[in-house]
Amino acid sequence: MTRELNSILSDNAKGMKRSAIRELLKLTSNPDIISFAGGLPSPLSFPVDELKVIVNEMMETEATKALQYGSTEGDNLLREELVKVYQEQGLNISIDNLIITTASQQGLDLVAKLLINRGDKIIVGLPSYLGGLSAFNSYGASMVGVPLDDEGMSSIELEKTIEEMKSKNELPKFIYIIPDFQNPAGITMTEKRRKEILKISSKYNILIIEDSPYRELRYEGKPQKTLYELDETGNVIMLGTFSKIFAPGLRIGWVIASQEIVDKFVVAKQATDLCTSPFTQRIAARYLQKGLLKIKIKEIIEMYRKKKEIMMDSLKKYMPEGVSWTNPEGGLFLLLTLPEGMDSEKLFKIAIEKKVAFVIGSAFRCDDGGRNTARLNFSYASEEQNVEGIKRLAESIKEYK
Amino acid sequence: MTRELNSILSDNAKGMKRSAIRELLKLTSNPDIISFAGGLPSPLSFPVDELKVIVNEMMETEATKALQYGSTEGDNLLREELVKVYQEQGLNISIDNLIITTASQQGLDLVAKLLINRGDKIIVGLPSYLGGLSAFNSYGASMVGVPLDDEGMSSIELEKTIEEMKSKNELPKFIYIIPDFQNPAGITMTEKRRKEILKISSKYNILIIEDSPYRELRYEGKPQKTLYELDETGNVIMLGTFSKIFAPGLRIGWVIASQEIVDKFVVAKQATDLCTSPFTQRIAARYLQKGLLKIKIKEIIEMYRKKKEIMMDSLKKYMPEGVSWTNPEGGLFLLLTLPEGMDSEKLFKIAIEKKVAFVIGSAFRCDDGGRNTARLNFSYASEEQNVEGIKRLAESIKEYK
Repeated sequence: MTRELNSILSDNAKGMKRSAIRELLKLTSNPDIISFAGGLPSPLSFPVDELKVIVNEMMETEATKALQYGSTEGDNLLREELVKVYQEQGLNISIDNLIITTASQQGLDLVAKLLINRGDKIIVGLPSYLGGLSAFNSYGASMVGVPLDDEGMSSIELEKTIEEMKSKNELPKFIYIIPDFQNPAGITMTEKRRKEILKISSKYNILIIEDSPYRELRYEGKPQKTLYELDETGNVIMLGTFSKIFAPGLRIGWVIASQEIVDKFVVAKQATDLCTSPFTQRIAARYLQKGLLKIKIKEIIEMYRKKKEIMMDSLKKYMPEGVSWTNPEGGLFLLLTLPEGMDSEKLFKIAIEKKVAFVIGSAFRCDDGGRNTARLNFSYASEEQNVEGIKRLAESIKEYK
Repeated sequence: MTRELNSILSDNAKGMKRSAIRELLKLTSNPDIISFAGGLPSPLSFPVDELKVIVNEMMETEATKALQYGSTEGDNLLREELVKVYQEQGLNISIDNLIITTASQQGLDLVAKLLINRGDKIIVGLPSYLGGLSAFNSYGASMVGVPLDDEGMSSIELEKTIEEMKSKNELPKFIYIIPDFQNPAGITMTEKRRKEILKISSKYNILIIEDSPYRELRYEGKPQKTLYELDETGNVIMLGTFSKIFAPGLRIGWVIASQEIVDKFVVAKQATDLCTSPFTQRIAARYLQKGLLKIKIKEIIEMYRKKKEIMMDSLKKYMPEGVSWTNPEGGLFLLLTLPEGMDSEKLFKIAIEKKVAFVIGSAFRCDDGGRNTARLNFSYASEEQNVEGIKRLAESIKEYK
């Protein structure tokens, strides 16, 4: 093109940045590098043999349905099976409360598409999931951060922030929350805090986006009720996904909300990708119907609990003084805090030379904080690598000048 | 929610309509109804046996790759195979010119996300593909229609329209064109017209979106060069898909453009769904690699050519005077024109009672024209149904008062 491409991009596209992380992560493709960077499940967690059976059955009995276009709402069998899972947990929902999405990243995209006018305020955690921040940024959201403490997003800070916004007549469109094993902090919101947050949501009548990709992966402590279950006002939109408990390659997630809200998602999704793959949806539906998901989740929990413990032990053993870390009750990540003034981006370069990788903490912030933090994933690398990688990372920190 | 949901929706979401078509199409779910309404390929066109073999091989040798997250650009093997297909057609492209999308509806969504600020002008054909119009509308595009004649979008009308826009300093962001077997009109753009349109695009420096889902399905006449191939300025973004020549249920499409533009698509797609299913992508890659797509396309062409001829014969035999129709050289659709003053929405109700369905022509228009037109699909119903359905439709027209 002769003209400058940037001049004709939408304002939102002008604000989309080729993520710095993406560039950093390219460095980690070297197979010698132990990567704690991605949010990848262990390939050993994939139910390959079970899927072989299911795919063969599907190709015998319902191939033409799986290969054809499907409805925007999603495969009805899959929706019914998912509703059963949630009903067993105590949620009062029907299939009209659930739409299938092309994994939960599309859920985040549709949330933004439905709710955000360029410049609209929203509230996110400090820190918060990178993919959520990108989705909201891609619609021009103006993000305001509220810090987390040990019990999750601070309700005192949240209310203070909302009051300030209210005084400027700039109430946020929604509050983005990852209550269970938060990404990247690894913190789980207590029930008391959940109720406080819901009270604020109800008082100011602000939607909550409950992003819940890890909830089933609890290694200790007892499950918390979802914000969706605790809410009595219809203000919560919950996002779920198979990416961490089944297989991210199938690209299946879902949104649970009031029927009125789900209807809006259907209209928005139709213009976005018509439908999520009926082929992968039907595989997932049969997998659930056979009761295999429950069994698999137990196996994954055993596998990841051990990996996590090994990483925790190694951190204790190798990390120099001044370094601290969260102890997540579940999920895939923990957050490392380096001594004040240490810059994890600078550390990253040393670490890559020592052949270990992580994600710099500032990537998860809508402000410019978090520079002395780093997210570590413990699910993808092997147990041995979790030891060796922490050893290398500790050495990198010691070498940091 | 206690508050009115609509009050917090984005302006774009407020403008999204639950498509009237969707509601009309619901009426066609009755299995007694012969449906010429959908854009569905024939289930007999799906390569079920070949896919069974491929999926089994994949599960044996590369399951963990297929079940894991993949890159945003898409599976490299699939990109390479697609590049080969286009290189054989004479296109000078490399994998850096191609990004995989979650079928071509996502291509349209990303086009709009990247280019449209609410209120921006774009140019579309009169008529034009419904899903394109929805995607552009969902970002608040202001659509200006340019009529088609027998050679495709009128270049004279196009230039007149652009001149008018220019005089108001409102040049369009892009021109949306379906050059081959246009949906819904069934018209193919001549090479002369393609060159005229490209000259206008180059003169005013306006992007062309070349939507090309049917190009491989040619039943007569000789293939036209794509706008992408004829263009010399880098102004063309071409969208392709497997939905009509392989299987829509896999949800795989692609965008071909200059590397600079593809890079923008990558950033936008990452925030939208991270990646298209590596599982279905790998199936498609192996299918192409085995040379099966070429063989299958030949079979589909034979099947659809016959279906089309049967529908054309039936139209000639049964339609009352005053009704005319296009004779597409390929694709899935033809456009019926009813006598002036006849309203296809009113006809639809009679037709449904006679158990035959179509899509009303006004659905494909950004203006309020096309009321006496109807789109007929000839690929989905059986040969016998194509005869019987046209008979029923002709009776409905005769009964119209």
